[in-house]
Amino acid sequence: MITLGPVGPLKQLSGWELQQCQQRLQGEHAQLFHQCALAVLHSGHQMDNQQQLLSCYPDFSIQLLPKHSELHLRLLNPPPHALVEGQLIHSLHAHLFAVVRDLLLGPPELAEPVPSMTDPSLASQQITHQIFAQLRHAQVVTEQLPTPLIVCWGGHAIQATEYRYAQQVGYELGLRGLQVATGCGPGAMEAPMKGAVRGHARQWYKNSRLIGLTEPMIIAAEPPNAFVNQLVILADIEKRLEAFVRLARGIIIFPGGPGTAEELLYLLAILMHADNQHQRLPVILTGPRESAAYWQPLEQFIQEALGLEAQHYYQLIVDDAQGVAQSLKQLIEPSDRSSQPLAFNASLVIPYALQQPFHPTHAAMAQLTVNRQQSASERAILLRQLFSGIVAGNIRQESIQAVAEQGPFRLQGDHALMQAIDRLLNAFIQQQRMKLPGSTYVPCYEIAS
Amino acid sequence: MITLGPVGPLKQLSGWELQQCQQRLQGEHAQLFHQCALAVLHSGHQMDNQQQLLSCYPDFSIQLLPKHSELHLRLLNPPPHALVEGQLIHSLHAHLFAVVRDLLLGPPELAEPVPSMTDPSLASQQITHQIFAQLRHAQVVTEQLPTPLIVCWGGHAIQATEYRYAQQVGYELGLRGLQVATGCGPGAMEAPMKGAVRGHARQWYKNSRLIGLTEPMIIAAEPPNAFVNQLVILADIEKRLEAFVRLARGIIIFPGGPGTAEELLYLLAILMHADNQHQRLPVILTGPRESAAYWQPLEQFIQEALGLEAQHYYQLIVDDAQGVAQSLKQLIEPSDRSSQPLAFNASLVIPYALQQPFHPTHAAMAQLTVNRQQSASERAILLRQLFSGIVAGNIRQESIQAVAEQGPFRLQGDHALMQAIDRLLNAFIQQQRMKLPGSTYVPCYEIAS
Amino acid sequence: MITLGPVGPLKQLSGWELQQCQQRLQGEHAQLFHQCALAVLHSGHQMDNQQQLLSCYPDFSIQLLPKHSELHLRLLNPPPHALVEGQLIHSLHAHLFAVVRDLLLGPPELAEPVPSMTDPSLASQQITHQIFAQLRHAQVVTEQLPTPLIVCWGGHAIQATEYRYAQQVGYELGLRGLQVATGCGPGAMEAPMKGAVRGHARQWYKNSRLIGLTEPMIIAAEPPNAFVNQLVILADIEKRLEAFVRLARGIIIFPGGPGTAEELLYLLAILMHADNQHQRLPVILTGPRESAAYWQPLEQFIQEALGLEAQHYYQLIVDDAQGVAQSLKQLIEPSDRSSQPLAFNASLVIPYALQQPFHPTHAAMAQLTVNRQQSASERAILLRQLFSGIVAGNIRQESIQAVAEQGPFRLQGDHALMQAIDRLLNAFIQQQRMKLPGSTYVPCYEIAS
Amino acid sequence: MITLGPVGPLKQLSGWELQQCQQRLQGEHAQLFHQCALAVLHSGHQMDNQQQLLSCYPDFSIQLLPKHSELHLRLLNPPPHALVEGQLIHSLHAHLFAVVRDLLLGPPELAEPVPSMTDPSLASQQITHQIFAQLRHAQVVTEQLPTPLIVCWGGHAIQATEYRYAQQVGYELGLRGLQVATGCGPGAMEAPMKGAVRGHARQWYKNSRLIGLTEPMIIAAEPPNAFVNQLVILADIEKRLEAFVRLARGIIIFPGGPGTAEELLYLLAILMHADNQHQRLPVILTGPRESAAYWQPLEQFIQEALGLEAQHYYQLIVDDAQGVAQSLKQLIEPSDRSSQPLAFNASLVIPYALQQPFHPTHAAMAQLTVNRQQSASERAILLRQLFSGIVAGNIRQESIQAVAEQGPFRLQGDHALMQAIDRLLNAFIQQQRMKLPGSTYVPCYEIAS
Repeated sequence: MITLGPVGPLKQLSGWELQQCQQRLQGEHAQLFHQCALAVLHSGHQMDNQQQLLSCYPDFSIQLLPKHSELHLRLLNPPPHALVEGQLIHSLHAHLFAVVRDLLLGPPELAEPVPSMTDPSLASQQITHQIFAQLRHAQVVTEQLPTPLIVCWGGHAIQATEYRYAQQVGYELGLRGLQVATGCGPGAMEAPMKGAVRGHARQWYKNSRLIGLTEPMIIAAEPPNAFVNQLVILADIEKRLEAFVRLARGIIIFPGGPGTAEELLYLLAILMHADNQHQRLPVILTGPRESAAYWQPLEQFIQEALGLEAQHYYQLIVDDAQGVAQSLKQLIEPSDRSSQPLAFNASLVIPYALQQPFHPTHAAMAQLTVNRQQSASERAILLRQLFSGIVAGNIRQESIQAVAEQGPFRLQGDHALMQAIDRLLNAFIQQQRMKLPGSTYVPCYEIAS
Repeated sequence: MITLGPVGPLKQLSGWELQQCQQRLQGEHAQLFHQCALAVLHSGHQMDNQQQLLSCYPDFSIQLLPKHSELHLRLLNPPPHALVEGQLIHSLHAHLFAVVRDLLLGPPELAEPVPSMTDPSLASQQITHQIFAQLRHAQVVTEQLPTPLIVCWGGHAIQATEYRYAQQVGYELGLRGLQVATGCGPGAMEAPMKGAVRGHARQWYKNSRLIGLTEPMIIAAEPPNAFVNQLVILADIEKRLEAFVRLARGIIIFPGGPGTAEELLYLLAILMHADNQHQRLPVILTGPRESAAYWQPLEQFIQEALGLEAQHYYQLIVDDAQGVAQSLKQLIEPSDRSSQPLAFNASLVIPYALQQPFHPTHAAMAQLTVNRQQSASERAILLRQLFSGIVAGNIRQESIQAVAEQGPFRLQGDHALMQAIDRLLNAFIQQQRMKLPGSTYVPCYEIAS
Repeated sequence: MITLGPVGPLKQLSGWELQQCQQRLQGEHAQLFHQCALAVLHSGHQMDNQQQLLSCYPDFSIQLLPKHSELHLRLLNPPPHALVEGQLIHSLHAHLFAVVRDLLLGPPELAEPVPSMTDPSLASQQITHQIFAQLRHAQVVTEQLPTPLIVCWGGHAIQATEYRYAQQVGYELGLRGLQVATGCGPGAMEAPMKGAVRGHARQWYKNSRLIGLTEPMIIAAEPPNAFVNQLVILADIEKRLEAFVRLARGIIIFPGGPGTAEELLYLLAILMHADNQHQRLPVILTGPRESAAYWQPLEQFIQEALGLEAQHYYQLIVDDAQGVAQSLKQLIEPSDRSSQPLAFNASLVIPYALQQPFHPTHAAMAQLTVNRQQSASERAILLRQLFSGIVAGNIRQESIQAVAEQGPFRLQGDHALMQAIDRLLNAFIQQQRMKLPGSTYVPCYEIAS
Repeated sequence: MITLGPVGPLKQLSGWELQQCQQRLQGEHAQLFHQCALAVLHSGHQMDNQQQLLSCYPDFSIQLLPKHSELHLRLLNPPPHALVEGQLIHSLHAHLFAVVRDLLLGPPELAEPVPSMTDPSLASQQITHQIFAQLRHAQVVTEQLPTPLIVCWGGHAIQATEYRYAQQVGYELGLRGLQVATGCGPGAMEAPMKGAVRGHARQWYKNSRLIGLTEPMIIAAEPPNAFVNQLVILADIEKRLEAFVRLARGIIIFPGGPGTAEELLYLLAILMHADNQHQRLPVILTGPRESAAYWQPLEQFIQEALGLEAQHYYQLIVDDAQGVAQSLKQLIEPSDRSSQPLAFNASLVIPYALQQPFHPTHAAMAQLTVNRQQSASERAILLRQLFSGIVAGNIRQESIQAVAEQGPFRLQGDHALMQAIDRLLNAFIQQQRMKLPGSTYVPCYEIAS
């Protein structure tokens, strides 16, 4: 049995806040909190799925322990590798309180009554405020002038050459004083962080921030890697994506699977939006020489789906880790001089449709009709949802079960576009990027003829 | 014209929060904000009343200036003594943003819907949470282990010997590493801070915190003294008093007028409450030899009104500045060793009746019927309100006008008690403690026969 | 009995260094160390002379206490006012270790053998290195970029209006972020420090440095005032003066006596030197309206002794505290922008004759023959020595006794110059600036006819 | 061409010190400084020998550039991998100034004349003072309470399994908050540092110190590895070894060659000395399972040479990285509680013979007669010198040439002991630990029959 004292902003809570945490823990959040806590204690270790983790530690439990105005935690039977001489490793200790903060306490908010949802512009602004308030509460957005942050996306199950390359890119970012945020897990989410640590160390940067942004469903399946030192659990996929793009001064996309395609579509939906043409958010697709083949089908799909102009919004750099970092450093520097760098880019316009959670039921998937009349940004929004559904069908328990019961999702829309999607997904399958390498992939979708 | 960038926790605001500030400024808070801002710029300077201040600077104005996600302020025609070579003195700069924080932005709160007010215990807890959240937002309550804080109360218009004595007490507190919080203004609110600064300097304490707690009505009439380095504007008198007693590890009361009596009654209402008998909150009444006569009528009144046992809840020390500090240091130390010191004493029970704002209308004053059947704590609550009304009748514009129109407040209740009150107030009048020395005092009350 | 652990750079000493300290304490330095330690414990308190202090605390003693590789101190019967609840006040604790550092340990130096003294230029450079090494060891010169330092000189026994004025000047310096160094004692050495503390506090400057530079003979008679937070004991008057001018970005001279005249002559000897014509070191003479009469005889003497051009090297500002600070701030700013500010102005040329200790024996005083053939700088050097002798004759035990035995110093030289000196000294006598006000002054010199 | 400003304690130098640096650079140190600077710029890269490095960068040069009182450096044609976008990597920048500090400036010392060398005890104390003063100057010994430091020794050319194991040991040390000092180069000097960085990061230790202690001859052949963040260049092998044992709270020895045996003999000469029997300096020999065979001949030799009791002074742990760290943590903890941890263990007695530089000429080697009449400590001293000579004969240019010209060193002494040495050296040869794996080793010694 281990008792943990509070850290950081949770050191001072009111009696009212303590009560709120306890109430939430008694309700719907109980199981989720248990799973996330266990995942965090598994941080730095690989695992296949969340069921396995739970079954490995059937006796584990975590309890809230209010002591005066402080919230302590009590752990029973935690995984032994989380301890050193009976003391919890400090980064795990801090991550556990990040889970409490994000799942049980919630960010402090303006006490104003929530306005009616009939005004989308107001509703959109409020969603952005919630994300901002959570990042501020998590001390990701602080009073200090931020060091430019580069967001790195890519697959969690990449190949060894890809891992080494992503690590080298991270090292070059680190040497240039750039910070790294990723989706928190293994593979392309871990490698650039590992590299950045070394780059920062060689430059004696003291404030090496490695930010992992995740969400409750994902963290349970993908524990934070060992390098994350700021963990934030956003409420859903859409808030997580918005947090990424508002924090980023630049974005790097490494090879991945349909999740990576989803992220690229999300980005293009924003960057191709008419109101964002003055924004500067460099996006670089990159990978080692050995993975050069990955990009061709993806680029072809983007051009077919969003038009040739889409390629103005990103840059492809093959096998040049130093070039990637140099290019980003150069692209983000001018704005440093002309104006104060922004920790949180509030001026980026994110369409309300991208902010609303998309639940990939069979009905919802069937309704995603993409056509040529829509603007490129609108089409990207729908395609993003479509790929989000396919990712869910691959890895989310709920969706996997729905597909098992009701058959694959049926995708429909403009015929040529549907075929482009199918080609891309088949390329992913052939490259074994739809799941962990080694198993045979059974598609969770079919194209409506 | 001067433009000021944000400081501290206001450096990072969301678009939503910026909009909230602007909306409030356009409404009811506009005039109050203008007055408080001007008072803050007058910090460190004496003034008689707020009308005079406004008329001295008729061209002064202050505007919000949102810049991206930052809130800047623009000042037109600020008082020249607030500037050094065209730059605002930094403490005034910080105080101005404290005004923005407390009047326009408001502390971040849990977004939970406010529960119905039919449950006083819940309502009481929520009021305490609001105060806590505001003090945390103001960084008065922080993650760091707090240095013990001593609250000093007393008159704003004390005599020179009293000022020097209070300064000496502050010096002795400072030498012992104790911090000081006061009501923010001149006299007994300034002197202990002035002394504590020197004590801290001789001991090389780096983190000398001098906390001024005020409220919107008072700050406009009493600018912060030059020593305050953390300014908080609580919403009303009751929240200000609660903030004082929850932050305090000990309380010193210097000579004052009816306001000081009000504060002592507030304290006794809490400390004599049955649920607080395990609490340790030392209270010391003290002053120089020359002011020894002040205490006799006050103590006599307390004993008549609350019984002989009241004297167990405070200690009177005449003319021994070092003894006051030694005594407090000793009284608060044991709890240091046995348990972590608390920045905010959440466990103190404050009756809901003491938390609710008291509006001293003629009707409300007439209803305050004190009698012998009430417990000492209950009687102290009513007497606190009664003295609060008399203070308002002396110095608040609104109450002064009501008295001018409707005649003096009529006080009624147990006859002997009413006479005790009258004796005390007459003693204050004779000692010229009802107003600034020099003017003739016309009572704002009469005892109902 | 109190035991004190080491602070600052004395925390880590080698066995060799510990042994050095102990050896010195057994020798010549023993009595001096005792006196200086007692003076430091008396810091912040006035005293008339050192004999009195020693006789007040006949049982006081201080011992070195090596503990492993740490140097502890043991105090027996220290003055009670130096303690708070049995603990030494921290600034006194730190000052005691400054005495150990400067008297017993000595600054670390290059281990090179000292070159022969036949090369004055090399010898001069070595003296400057010694001063530099001591200031660096004392952490007065550090790695951090220095805040501009203003040196304030003036009498230790000034009038109340002069004290208030000097305090106001210090406040205005502090508001402008300027630091203050003085000779460490009372009067004009204390007042600007007291003011600067307030100015710094209002601007929230965290790093308020108040540097007191003294020497062994002086500190024993003039304990550090209560505001000094960096104490350095230079080896002799000449090293102290050199430390002042190399640290200063600007110099203010308040009214004083012959010691102040000595300091002004020292300054002019340097600033009027041919090799320093490119240097920028603003010097301001200033005092309140009530002391305006002080400057006329001094200025007249300077012009008679050094010529009209001397007045280009200083500025007289009467009764304008803000103007003094504004003027200095403005004069020292340009160099801030064009080049890094220097903590220690190594490029200033200080003639070797000014660096060598002057021992005012009757013979030495009789040899100081000033004449019109000498350059202004050369004359200023001799006059500085002459005034140094008169100061010694007034306050140094040794010189007072020599004058008692051998009669007054006989001053000779150019007749007109000698008469100018006599006029100035008479003016000091009339203004009661030759000693503490109240006593009758008996001159320690006579002008040879 | 790159110009570098000074860092750390070199930011403030006197004119005298600047001149000292320049004089030394013009003399004997010029070539050494050039070589060391180039080696530092190669930090983090492997290289075979120093000749190769010099020939790779024939155009490289480094110059001192005094600017006012600051010492700048100018680099011409530095290795390109030392730069990021034209800026020198900061750790290399700092290391370069460490070279200036240690080779040109020298540590500040007490200015006392060096006493005659006829008193070995005084001479010994002075050598220790020099080492202490240099470590303090290098900020390895500071005012801050030190985190316990573990010294790791072992070969520079170890096998991959040994590297991984040493890294794992470092990780476990880091998890327990222990710092690491090594000989600065690759192999067993790099691996524990690499591991410790990760351990510190997981525990959020901010002050991760990785201390590399080297000497001028060695650094030129072995650039600092990429993890060293505090570099100190001691004057010779003996001062380097003394620095290690006085800084260490515990020592780990990984597999190596004769250099490692030399270090173990040095340790045992000290620990088996009669005056050190109260000292606690745990020594652990450790390696992976695959290298278990390494220890048998080494232990056997130690027992034959120094007796069975020698094994009480170290512990052998095979293949248990966690156990090594746990054991050390436990062994050094008790002294933490009872007394302040020491940054520099001045009380350890180091025989003067171990402090004096040993120059392995053929004559000196021939005189090292070890016999059974000597105490274990005395024998260990001689054997240490003997192995030191063999290491030099293997890797030092000078000695290699002497051996080439005069034939192998002739070793003589007690016959059984000589044979024990031969057996150990043959074991090293068989295990390919006498040189980089792959080449054939030709012994630089022969045992006199």
